[in-house]
Amino acid sequence: MISDKKKHGSYLITYHSSLITVFMNIAIIAAAGQGTRMGAGRAKQFLELAGTPIIIHTLRRFEECAEIQATVVVLPAPDVAGFLALAGKYGLLKLSRVVQGGETRAESVWRGLQAVRAATAEIIAVHDGVRPFVTPEEISRTVRAAKEYGAAILTAPATDTIKEIQDGKIVRTHAREALRHALTPQCFRYELLRRAYEQAPNRGADATDCSALVEQLGEPVAIVEGDARNIKITRPEDIAFGEILLRESQVSSPKSQV
Amino acid sequence: MISDKKKHGSYLITYHSSLITVFMNIAIIAAAGQGTRMGAGRAKQFLELAGTPIIIHTLRRFEECAEIQATVVVLPAPDVAGFLALAGKYGLLKLSRVVQGGETRAESVWRGLQAVRAATAEIIAVHDGVRPFVTPEEISRTVRAAKEYGAAILTAPATDTIKEIQDGKIVRTHAREALRHALTPQCFRYELLRRAYEQAPNRGADATDCSALVEQLGEPVAIVEGDARNIKITRPEDIAFGEILLRESQVSSPKSQV
Repeated sequence: MISDKKKHGSYLITYHSSLITVFMNIAIIAAAGQGTRMGAGRAKQFLELAGTPIIIHTLRRFEECAEIQATVVVLPAPDVAGFLALAGKYGLLKLSRVVQGGETRAESVWRGLQAVRAATAEIIAVHDGVRPFVTPEEISRTVRAAKEYGAAILTAPATDTIKEIQDGKIVRTHAREALRHALTPQCFRYELLRRAYEQAPNRGADATDCSALVEQLGEPVAIVEGDARNIKITRPEDIAFGEILLRESQVSSPKSQV
Repeated sequence: MISDKKKHGSYLITYHSSLITVFMNIAIIAAAGQGTRMGAGRAKQFLELAGTPIIIHTLRRFEECAEIQATVVVLPAPDVAGFLALAGKYGLLKLSRVVQGGETRAESVWRGLQAVRAATAEIIAVHDGVRPFVTPEEISRTVRAAKEYGAAILTAPATDTIKEIQDGKIVRTHAREALRHALTPQCFRYELLRRAYEQAPNRGADATDCSALVEQLGEPVAIVEGDARNIKITRPEDIAFGEILLRESQVSSPKSQV
């Protein structure tokens, strides 16, 4: 059958599509934080950056990344119901599930992971909803590294010297070249990430990130060099900074669908 | 004599001034970098932020800090001659020496330190010329901590998870609460910093910062909690970010003297 269909381009594509469906790369966007410190009474992932909610900017980067076939968004309970309409307004075609988050980020990611169908998942890309400046190319490279090594995370070099402290005093200066900031996405083979959560005490609630859970299994995690501009929006001035980045960089794609 | 003069305010002030001269706190501003990657063909410390050179913004923070009595600026060779005129234009009253920098930051700081008169120095505050967003209050707290502990550096909490790597793989995830970004100023009793440089191999040329040299002596270094906004300007977008900070924060003092 395969050799027959190889002669016909269009059938071949259909056939390939069904194969791809069996091995999808799925992004879990962790956006269940309810912090409203940034003002305006809204969780920060819904604040607007250049007129568009931050979470939409973030999802667009995954829409634009050919390595990603579907996205699962984990949100605060009050935002779950209305999100499909918002996604429709912005033409987000890859959004496949909207999930209610848990008490901690780890619990939210775990819930997102449970919403993924095991049979269809190859690589899971876990990403912070408030990191809208990741590029599709960075996502691609991290997904591909995870295919090769099982686990890979996007990182940025340390710019400041990092000190280790104890009781208010410095106990160690780390060699800067041996340190990396852990950014997102963090990408894993589905079964590896699932096992990491299942075997972690308290489902990983105390872990700093997904990668730490996989590291605890003794499994290697590769690093992918990314750009330090891929910040987590946490402070009011980050919004203004983000608008500068959107104006000056390639992040704002002319292909955006609004 | 002292009790006599106490009756006369003006004499007393004169007398106190001479006492203060004996124990001055002196800032060494390391601004000898010649990198012109940021464009405009000028070293980045001379690029303008809201119409004023970055190095002038930085020096103003030290002008505004009552704990600092004098500043020593270390510059690239071509900028030494003209700097006093620039300082005069901006009314920098504490500038006491302009020194030509060395090959590395450590060598530049060492040259600045050699320009300080041992008899007059109590605390040396070493600061990056391209960190204009430090506040006078942060400088004060760091100087005071150095008076108490011998050595103290301004720091900011780690916001990202930090990974230690080896051969492109993660070997350790650090507990975020045990890590701090080393900012500047880094403040030391004069004789301690001098000893740290004198005893360091190759005059500390390989050290990441002054604090590391003092740590290598086995001397305790205290940490002072500062604001992450006190960034080192390294990328073009940092300039735009800085202008937002200047507009929105207290950094831009209405008392500026231009």
